[in-house]
Amino acid sequence: MSIYLDNSATTPICENAKEKMLQAMDDNWGNPSSFHKKGIEALSLLDEARKTVAEKLGAQSEEIYFTSGGTLSNNIAVLGAAKALSRKGKKIITTSVEHPSVEKAMKSLEKDGFEVVRLKVDGDCKVSKKDILDAIDEKTVLVSMMLVNNEVGAIMPVEFLRKAVKTKNSPALIHCDAVQAFGKLDVDVKKLGVDLLTVSSHKINGPKGSGALYVRKGVRIVSPVVGGGQEGDVCPGTQATPAIAGFCGAAQTISAQRETLEKTRILRDEFIKKLLLVEGIKINSPSDALPYIVNFSAEGIPSQPMITFLSQNGICVSGGSACAKGHRSPTLSAMGLPIERIDSAIRVSMSKATTGEELEETVRFIELAVKTLRKSR
Amino acid sequence: MSIYLDNSATTPICENAKEKMLQAMDDNWGNPSSFHKKGIEALSLLDEARKTVAEKLGAQSEEIYFTSGGTLSNNIAVLGAAKALSRKGKKIITTSVEHPSVEKAMKSLEKDGFEVVRLKVDGDCKVSKKDILDAIDEKTVLVSMMLVNNEVGAIMPVEFLRKAVKTKNSPALIHCDAVQAFGKLDVDVKKLGVDLLTVSSHKINGPKGSGALYVRKGVRIVSPVVGGGQEGDVCPGTQATPAIAGFCGAAQTISAQRETLEKTRILRDEFIKKLLLVEGIKINSPSDALPYIVNFSAEGIPSQPMITFLSQNGICVSGGSACAKGHRSPTLSAMGLPIERIDSAIRVSMSKATTGEELEETVRFIELAVKTLRKSR
Repeated sequence: MSIYLDNSATTPICENAKEKMLQAMDDNWGNPSSFHKKGIEALSLLDEARKTVAEKLGAQSEEIYFTSGGTLSNNIAVLGAAKALSRKGKKIITTSVEHPSVEKAMKSLEKDGFEVVRLKVDGDCKVSKKDILDAIDEKTVLVSMMLVNNEVGAIMPVEFLRKAVKTKNSPALIHCDAVQAFGKLDVDVKKLGVDLLTVSSHKINGPKGSGALYVRKGVRIVSPVVGGGQEGDVCPGTQATPAIAGFCGAAQTISAQRETLEKTRILRDEFIKKLLLVEGIKINSPSDALPYIVNFSAEGIPSQPMITFLSQNGICVSGGSACAKGHRSPTLSAMGLPIERIDSAIRVSMSKATTGEELEETVRFIELAVKTLRKSR
Repeated sequence: MSIYLDNSATTPICENAKEKMLQAMDDNWGNPSSFHKKGIEALSLLDEARKTVAEKLGAQSEEIYFTSGGTLSNNIAVLGAAKALSRKGKKIITTSVEHPSVEKAMKSLEKDGFEVVRLKVDGDCKVSKKDILDAIDEKTVLVSMMLVNNEVGAIMPVEFLRKAVKTKNSPALIHCDAVQAFGKLDVDVKKLGVDLLTVSSHKINGPKGSGALYVRKGVRIVSPVVGGGQEGDVCPGTQATPAIAGFCGAAQTISAQRETLEKTRILRDEFIKKLLLVEGIKINSPSDALPYIVNFSAEGIPSQPMITFLSQNGICVSGGSACAKGHRSPTLSAMGLPIERIDSAIRVSMSKATTGEELEETVRFIELAVKTLRKSR
């Protein structure tokens, strides 16, 4: 038996992505910067991928820059926007539950003299609109907020940011890390009103090693990555054409998000209902979270033995996020959960292919784990 | 007919690399940071790749950090070493013929108050040992020099740097961009005496989207890339496992470099001999360059029409490097060549698979191009 419920960490590569990658490797292996036939072929692959990703985000092709993934996109967006606008002000607003690639970029900006305001979240991982409005001012040059939290699935009020920035007459650019939302929610850069937006290939059944940064036309950032001018100097370096082709292939398969979301919501509700019948289980995800992510804690059982027990029984789940390995969950800490509950947190993250049977089996093994591991303590 | 002579820009993916990538996509698609079965499988792929690349460089596994490619490796090395050592001094030594990913990192350090000395080259792209010794002092924190120049193939005196740094009692770290040398020359970090060394997958018949940075054990750098702690925080972000697997597969095929080098030298000498029979051809590469790269100019014929003419006849060559697209060659400029000669420069870059017949055909078409294009002017 094999049940994969760690789709927020990474996803298997879909057939369409694989086919595109094989084609990129066999035929379009040239350097897109070369002026000869092989270069032009590789460039056409890039063009197709850029168009595809742009369409899925409601953006224009020339607003999409390929990067090596979500981390580099987030780094470039945050550091690049701060550097470009530092003459206008040195204040930045973000939240206390961002991905480490945003949070650590903020720390590095603080060392460079920026003031970073981290908006607090409540026990439901909610940021208040009042706090947002209070924080933004005319010295604020960047607001960075994720669309879906990677640990608990909370949906953050990104859409409110444009209004807040306008209301407070702020020159701030708005960046959104949409890595966990892309492919699951409608991610439309215009509806969201953002200037910069991060997406990643390997969370949508594309290969690891590719991501994109949307930079709204007219917005200038000063990228921390420097080199030979590729990707409009936003992310220079020879483009990772096989991975980009795979990203394109995966993006092409995104469809019917609303129906899948509804189906997943029903599965999720049923899963939680059954899960709560197991002794000592507490749900950490807010009830209105993205239904693909369910974060819970089993009282008195630390995350690792639970992960190992489930893995030995063919079920893959995670504790917190794969990107916070070895550290106490930043999101659950910010939500004010007690330490024991944080240390026993488990994240189940589904895909559109997840079935009710898989979730039932998972609950069964969680129950078994609880009994077995409690006894052994 | 199809003759690919732009191997310094990029190379086709070899069978072994492709097989490894397919395996990574089909089986080892987990996130190497995940604690469950799929994560552990992906981690074992990373371990194998790290061991393979380390062995090819005479390094230890834990000294190899995977990146998205040569550009990011160079950025991380230069910016990361400067940041780590800035308390000891603010002087950096490099050459005037480095890749843009090194040169532009230097420019960005100059803006941050570093003094950057760019060693001059002569008409043979040679840096003098005296200049190196004169430049390095006890305030020097970094010396960065490529092993093989990407435009003309000149082999640079990297091995002399350790001696120079010791002689001048300098705390400087030594970085070497070995992208064009790896797989062609013996690149041994200990023999070279370097602290940091950059290699790239797609120049050795691996996929684009993977590279590595060697960081000698005990050397600390402060990477400009920040995130979830992967790759020892040298290059965080979920590892590009398909590309890394391909890099591993390509590295495994590196062998018998000395024999291939000798064979290529004979081919190169014959190629140049024939090329010089064509009217108005001048060779820009030094005679002791890496034999894989031959840079020449056809008097009065700008690079682009020549590239296009050859491409239309199935022959892929480049003008300068693919990473300097649209800019006048930095290397040829530094070598002091006249502008007309720079603007008609063509780079022929071979692989170990290049044959004498291909080179003969190429000379034939270059001759035809010269006749045709001169007439049309």
